[in-house]
Amino acid sequence: MNSAVLLIHCPDQPGLVALVTEFVHKNRGNILDLDQHVDQELNHFFMRIEWDLTDFVIPKDKISDYFDTLIGASYEMKCSLKFTERKPRMALFVSKASHCLYDILQRYGTGEYNCEIPAIVSNHEQLRYIADRFDIPFHHIPITKATKPEQEAKTKDLLKELDVDFIVLARYMQILSDDFCKDYSHRIINIHHSFLPAFKGARPYHSAFTRGVKLIGATSHYVTADLDEGPIIAQDVAHVSHRDGISDLKRIGKDVEKRVLSRAIYLQLQHRILPFGNRTVIFN
Amino acid sequence: MNSAVLLIHCPDQPGLVALVTEFVHKNRGNILDLDQHVDQELNHFFMRIEWDLTDFVIPKDKISDYFDTLIGASYEMKCSLKFTERKPRMALFVSKASHCLYDILQRYGTGEYNCEIPAIVSNHEQLRYIADRFDIPFHHIPITKATKPEQEAKTKDLLKELDVDFIVLARYMQILSDDFCKDYSHRIINIHHSFLPAFKGARPYHSAFTRGVKLIGATSHYVTADLDEGPIIAQDVAHVSHRDGISDLKRIGKDVEKRVLSRAIYLQLQHRILPFGNRTVIFN
Amino acid sequence: MNSAVLLIHCPDQPGLVALVTEFVHKNRGNILDLDQHVDQELNHFFMRIEWDLTDFVIPKDKISDYFDTLIGASYEMKCSLKFTERKPRMALFVSKASHCLYDILQRYGTGEYNCEIPAIVSNHEQLRYIADRFDIPFHHIPITKATKPEQEAKTKDLLKELDVDFIVLARYMQILSDDFCKDYSHRIINIHHSFLPAFKGARPYHSAFTRGVKLIGATSHYVTADLDEGPIIAQDVAHVSHRDGISDLKRIGKDVEKRVLSRAIYLQLQHRILPFGNRTVIFN
Amino acid sequence: MNSAVLLIHCPDQPGLVALVTEFVHKNRGNILDLDQHVDQELNHFFMRIEWDLTDFVIPKDKISDYFDTLIGASYEMKCSLKFTERKPRMALFVSKASHCLYDILQRYGTGEYNCEIPAIVSNHEQLRYIADRFDIPFHHIPITKATKPEQEAKTKDLLKELDVDFIVLARYMQILSDDFCKDYSHRIINIHHSFLPAFKGARPYHSAFTRGVKLIGATSHYVTADLDEGPIIAQDVAHVSHRDGISDLKRIGKDVEKRVLSRAIYLQLQHRILPFGNRTVIFN
Repeated sequence: MNSAVLLIHCPDQPGLVALVTEFVHKNRGNILDLDQHVDQELNHFFMRIEWDLTDFVIPKDKISDYFDTLIGASYEMKCSLKFTERKPRMALFVSKASHCLYDILQRYGTGEYNCEIPAIVSNHEQLRYIADRFDIPFHHIPITKATKPEQEAKTKDLLKELDVDFIVLARYMQILSDDFCKDYSHRIINIHHSFLPAFKGARPYHSAFTRGVKLIGATSHYVTADLDEGPIIAQDVAHVSHRDGISDLKRIGKDVEKRVLSRAIYLQLQHRILPFGNRTVIFN
Repeated sequence: MNSAVLLIHCPDQPGLVALVTEFVHKNRGNILDLDQHVDQELNHFFMRIEWDLTDFVIPKDKISDYFDTLIGASYEMKCSLKFTERKPRMALFVSKASHCLYDILQRYGTGEYNCEIPAIVSNHEQLRYIADRFDIPFHHIPITKATKPEQEAKTKDLLKELDVDFIVLARYMQILSDDFCKDYSHRIINIHHSFLPAFKGARPYHSAFTRGVKLIGATSHYVTADLDEGPIIAQDVAHVSHRDGISDLKRIGKDVEKRVLSRAIYLQLQHRILPFGNRTVIFN
Repeated sequence: MNSAVLLIHCPDQPGLVALVTEFVHKNRGNILDLDQHVDQELNHFFMRIEWDLTDFVIPKDKISDYFDTLIGASYEMKCSLKFTERKPRMALFVSKASHCLYDILQRYGTGEYNCEIPAIVSNHEQLRYIADRFDIPFHHIPITKATKPEQEAKTKDLLKELDVDFIVLARYMQILSDDFCKDYSHRIINIHHSFLPAFKGARPYHSAFTRGVKLIGATSHYVTADLDEGPIIAQDVAHVSHRDGISDLKRIGKDVEKRVLSRAIYLQLQHRILPFGNRTVIFN
Repeated sequence: MNSAVLLIHCPDQPGLVALVTEFVHKNRGNILDLDQHVDQELNHFFMRIEWDLTDFVIPKDKISDYFDTLIGASYEMKCSLKFTERKPRMALFVSKASHCLYDILQRYGTGEYNCEIPAIVSNHEQLRYIADRFDIPFHHIPITKATKPEQEAKTKDLLKELDVDFIVLARYMQILSDDFCKDYSHRIINIHHSFLPAFKGARPYHSAFTRGVKLIGATSHYVTADLDEGPIIAQDVAHVSHRDGISDLKRIGKDVEKRVLSRAIYLQLQHRILPFGNRTVIFN
């Protein structure tokens, strides 16, 4: 399918949907999917529209410019335009835990993810054999406090060279610098192994056990400079009982982590996430 | 809120969204909510649009006519127009089981349902005391094979007199005649105590127990002449185990039934259900 | 069914199950249900055993004494013995929100709860009409900062007079004094409208909205002097989206609250909860 | 851990738990876990007991004999004894769909499954590369109507030679002969891609789509000569909507299939499944 996806948000006012759909229709784009949302408290408008480009009269490289000039600028619209012909390029960052990495590669291997994975980056060597099994280049970039700035610079160079669109932290146990987070704003997806905002920080399963909760969760979110505070994309939970020790919580939790992270990646690949402030609008 | 909700479906073609939104916008209606869906296999278009009527220039009683003439007729659109100012009038049909009736009345009593309940109809006397507790008129209309036609006629008269919009069968244990079903097409909501199409017909919990399933379910659907075969509105399940005997399945199932039926009613009251063939499009 | 339920916990050591089952069997009790659990980290033993009293040779009022003397004392066992013939007596404390009260009374009314409800206590008058509908005595005990001690004393007198076994705070918006909590240790069940430990304290739905979570939850727990920190009995969640404003979160949350609280009450009535430290063992 | 797991079922009568626990205790076995269940309708007793063998006085190879002689025979007990020291040997049967195979191997690779996988058997060549990636022997045993008997014989020889304990049909698209099913009674686990008994047979996702269900499911069960009718081990579902076409149902369903099958395998590896007639008792 050769289509365009436009994500828009702006202050709400009457007529926005009509304006945008008319723009697409008049230029011979057939609308495939449309979803809009108005946040009544913030009086803010959000929209996702996807249309078939087959007969569209505006060339792909000029759509953004035309839309901004004719409509967007007059309504303070923030827009993001994606083309489904381009396969997103996703880099995976891992440390030692393999379950999320395996899960992503399995989905990639069975064709569930329409993307390229040009690199797996790790601060450890342990998971290289998995990358090898799936024939994906593995880059070992060890990090210490002292070497962090230069290693992050090296990482950024690699990502640029490989034309990476976004990063998935698949249980990557390093905290990225504020600069790194800003450079990849809304382009780094993390999986935290708790139902945020409960059990922020390290060792959430231990905390969950100590508190005696009856559910454990996982949260996928965009990474911001504030640890575990970025916009949430997806969350889920699993029931646990007194029978479950910490190792059981970890085992059960792994499944929740995989499920939640895979869902966030799927939404990202479909351009269905619109972050706004510290929240996300998920068009699905 | 004084708004209109228009549900549309028709064969798909380019430009439909633009046409409808332009109609609303040009006549000074502010779109509050819009959702559309194209069934790619059937090439069929579905839409729900809600707009504020405050400044709308077409009088309420002429909107349907104008829309059909200007747009609908040319595109073979089937439309249904509702006004949120009118509180839907819902009749409840019950027999002896009280849990769904109580649940509905409780939601009604706490203001969760924006509707009127002009009547509770039953083929038994047992639940009259609950109707009394909530000050809702109770009509005992007993039915035998011999009296069924006349009693259904009597029931229809009552429903007309009370200006009832739709009927909820809250564990009503009588099978309605084909004619009754047709007269109230897509206006009778039933709750079946199984995950349809599994365990159709009577005594589904016994069948579930015998089969040794690990989940039990409930299904809310529009009633058609084909028993348990109408378009499904909502379904849910609960986990069960070998420890649960038939009485446990019934107890656990009651909660699922209440949850599923209350969801179907909520969707109906919000005009979010668009039945099409034997399926439903749920805009939410 | 005329049976006894014995809840036991003590430091673990070999042979405990054999000892207890032999005691029951030798005295002609037929074991109906047995569940045990060893917390490996704490090396602590937990057990729930239920047996038929029909042919049991020890009189009911001496079972506790015999068991302690013959077995319990030698193994530092903490025991709690209940008889299923006695219907537990449950008091409901409410303020202005009616959904949990309605839900409990509905379950009580349909025979789901095998208990007595000798009183509904409230610091407001608003819900008296619901108590009246279900023919349950309603006690209005208003509380101000100044009157709290004497009103709590009055409440305790009432509870004693009515022989109340445990209290359910069905969205009761008063904080009980430490003394009150201690007097009714493990006998007050609260429903908190968040997935604890996330969003402790007041207005959790507002906090959930602000944080942009994708799930909201409810937690039922025993009340202790530390607000929202008592042992958790049951928790559940519901999925929400960006479309859900605070009023939607409240509406959806009500269903979760009802479900979680009703489950906690059911477990309590079945003597299936064994609190230990800040956690609970749930035998089910 | 060096422990024994004993699964027992027999007609119920007083004293069974005491008898079994006394046997373990007197012979210096420390009970690690005990769960029992009485089916009140069938008056049948079920039990799972696990004990530490470290100080157990009866040699491992004589426990079965001693237990049967001293207790089992007198009470018509059917027993199954397992030792946790032995890693179960699991064979995987696959055809062309890779998602369940990948999922199982990933769990195996991350240490979640305490078992050996001595062989992957397939009637097609397509998934050999995955077996290679995980260094597991792959056996291509093509089957046609004409060759079925000899190929099944060949398969049985292989399974015997490899000392296989049980088989997992990870989306294996061949129907096993009645004889094969009998030889491996309660030792073949299948995953069916629907919520049985709904949508038995081929193409369940197409049937689910046509019926317009709002949930899709998966069922793991022991294979018997009656297709899709064997005792159910685990089931789960996922919510779907009108937006989900058949390819979406398949995509969403894959996750449910993986989750349900992995759970069944986990229960099997822990000796927690006791099949009885057409149902299962799951001790967990």
